[in-house]
Amino acid sequence: MKNNKKYQDFCQHLRKITDIRHAIDVMSWDHQTYMPKNGAEARGQQVATLESVAHTLWLDEKFGVLLKELSEDSSLGANELANVRLVLRDYTRKKKYTLEFVDEMSRATSAGFSAWHEAKVKKDFSIFEPVLKKIVELKRQECEFLGYEDHPYNALLVDFEPGLTVKKVDEVFTDVKAQLFPFTKEVFKRAKPNREFLHMKYSKAKQLEFSEKKIKQMGYSFDGGRADFAPHPFCTTFGPGDVRITLWVDEEFFNPMFFAAVHEAGHALYEMGLPSKENYGLPAGEAISMAFHESQSRFWENCIARSRPYWEGSFKELQKEFPENLSSVSVEEFYKGVNYVEPSFVRVEADELTYHAHIYIRYLIEKALITNEIQVSDVPKFWNDRYEEFLGIRPENDAEGCLQDVHWSYGSFGYFPTYSLGSFISAQLLATMKKDISGFDDLVRSGNLTPIRQWLNTNVHSHGRLLTSNELLKRVTGSELQFKFFMDYAREKYGKIYGI
Amino acid sequence: MKNNKKYQDFCQHLRKITDIRHAIDVMSWDHQTYMPKNGAEARGQQVATLESVAHTLWLDEKFGVLLKELSEDSSLGANELANVRLVLRDYTRKKKYTLEFVDEMSRATSAGFSAWHEAKVKKDFSIFEPVLKKIVELKRQECEFLGYEDHPYNALLVDFEPGLTVKKVDEVFTDVKAQLFPFTKEVFKRAKPNREFLHMKYSKAKQLEFSEKKIKQMGYSFDGGRADFAPHPFCTTFGPGDVRITLWVDEEFFNPMFFAAVHEAGHALYEMGLPSKENYGLPAGEAISMAFHESQSRFWENCIARSRPYWEGSFKELQKEFPENLSSVSVEEFYKGVNYVEPSFVRVEADELTYHAHIYIRYLIEKALITNEIQVSDVPKFWNDRYEEFLGIRPENDAEGCLQDVHWSYGSFGYFPTYSLGSFISAQLLATMKKDISGFDDLVRSGNLTPIRQWLNTNVHSHGRLLTSNELLKRVTGSELQFKFFMDYAREKYGKIYGI
Repeated sequence: MKNNKKYQDFCQHLRKITDIRHAIDVMSWDHQTYMPKNGAEARGQQVATLESVAHTLWLDEKFGVLLKELSEDSSLGANELANVRLVLRDYTRKKKYTLEFVDEMSRATSAGFSAWHEAKVKKDFSIFEPVLKKIVELKRQECEFLGYEDHPYNALLVDFEPGLTVKKVDEVFTDVKAQLFPFTKEVFKRAKPNREFLHMKYSKAKQLEFSEKKIKQMGYSFDGGRADFAPHPFCTTFGPGDVRITLWVDEEFFNPMFFAAVHEAGHALYEMGLPSKENYGLPAGEAISMAFHESQSRFWENCIARSRPYWEGSFKELQKEFPENLSSVSVEEFYKGVNYVEPSFVRVEADELTYHAHIYIRYLIEKALITNEIQVSDVPKFWNDRYEEFLGIRPENDAEGCLQDVHWSYGSFGYFPTYSLGSFISAQLLATMKKDISGFDDLVRSGNLTPIRQWLNTNVHSHGRLLTSNELLKRVTGSELQFKFFMDYAREKYGKIYGI
Repeated sequence: MKNNKKYQDFCQHLRKITDIRHAIDVMSWDHQTYMPKNGAEARGQQVATLESVAHTLWLDEKFGVLLKELSEDSSLGANELANVRLVLRDYTRKKKYTLEFVDEMSRATSAGFSAWHEAKVKKDFSIFEPVLKKIVELKRQECEFLGYEDHPYNALLVDFEPGLTVKKVDEVFTDVKAQLFPFTKEVFKRAKPNREFLHMKYSKAKQLEFSEKKIKQMGYSFDGGRADFAPHPFCTTFGPGDVRITLWVDEEFFNPMFFAAVHEAGHALYEMGLPSKENYGLPAGEAISMAFHESQSRFWENCIARSRPYWEGSFKELQKEFPENLSSVSVEEFYKGVNYVEPSFVRVEADELTYHAHIYIRYLIEKALITNEIQVSDVPKFWNDRYEEFLGIRPENDAEGCLQDVHWSYGSFGYFPTYSLGSFISAQLLATMKKDISGFDDLVRSGNLTPIRQWLNTNVHSHGRLLTSNELLKRVTGSELQFKFFMDYAREKYGKIYGI
């Protein structure tokens, strides 16, 4: 092929950028897991330097010329062309970022993480406020220089979910408000299942052992990953063969570590399932979008690990580990306990139904901050008022209110909506999967999760990001994103649990 | 100052290189501590990419011009000029390496490591021999293009110890042979102290707890560092405020973890004591040399943590942690046990006295290889003959003989002598310190090590590498390196222990 050499240069250049990006990933992971506190300042500077090296490579003029040439090269195969065109789209977007902006943002977010962490520990928003103000100011600038149609927030959404718009998110949340919120209020009125047994002493070591065992069962490989503790659970990829997760622990509550482990392992299985070795640094080896990523984690966390068949198969194992807490608890009770629905303050601990109220509130705040409708100083009150409006509860302090999530501290605006969309996608995938895989519930019950993981490998992971989420969803499930699948799932599952 | 801007550019450029170097340090640390095994391939490529980015920045032609201009700029202050001139020296040296040579050496040492590892496991030198031959050939070339006076090996020594020459090392080892070796032979003849109590069950958790407590007492700060486990103990710096050590454990032997912890913490205190925050990336913020670095680790390990006053103060604490091993052991016995002298095969396990025979043998071999006096195929016999000559023992195989150290496999020639010089410097520093600090032994006994660390901070660490080792040693102790200080120390300490 006459352009082989040019295409190889293209791959080589992306490989180099990806190497540097993964160095940043390692340094950020270390920052959040093991770094001693006095290391923060230099680390911020070091990451900023690597960001700027990567940015300079990205914006190399010769690379731009190469991309343009290759994007019109008819001798390339379809996948090669798709790789080139997606990178050209990213290139065009990145071109809009100045070195000064990247550097300033990197410094702001590095300071942001420490400030957020301190503010959360001290329950004092004022520690985080000035840094967040700076970050929001930079995000507003970002929308302007990126450009957008209809709404500035669209400029940010597209970074996490290409093709997503405020219009679409508003549409989905109109359904959520009209269907899910009233259903959830019905649930609130019903008798609560017992869940005292979840709030007992669960030792860290045994929780970790059980969590690691169960994510291995999902197919997570410790030869190609590891689990560490961090203030916020996350999944991070350092390259093919090294996809790590982080966890946190509450020794008085079973749920947080276990469901975070399954959730992050769901992300990790997506990363491990991507053809990233043969497509290192190329779109063909990368995840499709944040919503699709979240569909994988929520699929495993909720559709599998919060399902009745799962605990019918796994409860005995858990009971054996913690007989002092669980010996007199039935599977039925346990299943209902881990699906307890209630208004609550903390997103990551929220049940499947109220979760979307948490997301909606964050989405409203981000949108209003970006359009200057509210200011950073308004966030705590705005937050608390919305919690009262949608969930009927008011946080007592900002640690359980607007300081609970790390996202804004690293400048992540436009990310939250993808969490809800991910849930909705997972329900849509589940509906198709149940048709495709016979004896689905039996597999889950028996702990033979391999066919399920393989279905996801084949139907979702193997495509990298060469298709858009809508294209992929349509190809796999026959239709674009529809809220109805989640609503059906929710009604069926929670209707039974709560007798509605 | 008219050149402020240029000097700032100089600092800025070094800061950038140093940021990338520290990223490599973090990735290498992770490789050796936490990385899952499948991560190795991508990590190797990622580090190579960062190395090449750093190398390109180093050899930037504009940077070379800037260095030359600044090095003749009379408006610069003395320290600024010293920073510039030292970097110019490094630049000039690095410039002599052709890309072809770097590439060839990189391939040879990459093959070297695998071959060495296999040879060591299989106890078969012939597996390593051809690769080592190639490496030695390249090292000989390196001496030629680097240039030298008097002796080609000088070209290599200077990389680890600027100013050090074969003449000086030969001089020192003439004394070692004439004074230390006969004394050590006297020690061999005396009755051995008991040390069975060191070879008992010491649990990992308790060893770690004790080690961490004792290095905190030295002044090692866990706010600016941490201890992790790795196959080999080392100290690594990620920037001001983040200096980490690694340990390893033998649960059947007390010495390895504890003395490695103190040794590595000694290196770390040097790094923590450097003015590296205000001189990030500059010689003024860097350690003076390998020998001086080793003087710090060996000072704490041997002159302090293997001293009698140290255990007079600390033995009770240890006894309390491990009563099952130590309740019937006296301080006197323990002190003698940790200072047990015997001929042995493995350098890293050797005592303070025989250690220098191990180093001398390696030095003789390296020098003879570089000058073509012996060939690689002669190494095993040469090695074994010297062990017999100096220590009276002959290795049974090359794994416990000339294959034991990794250094040659990665092309490190000229490093070994600095291990001995470090010991000798530490004894010379100790002699001065004892004059300067009144009640030295009482301080050590009471565990108040702060004045000792502060003395090192002020007299050694604060200078960065703006002075040569000889200049610094003369300034602090009144004379250049003299072997007599170590010999006096050894005679006094081991004379008492062994009744000589």
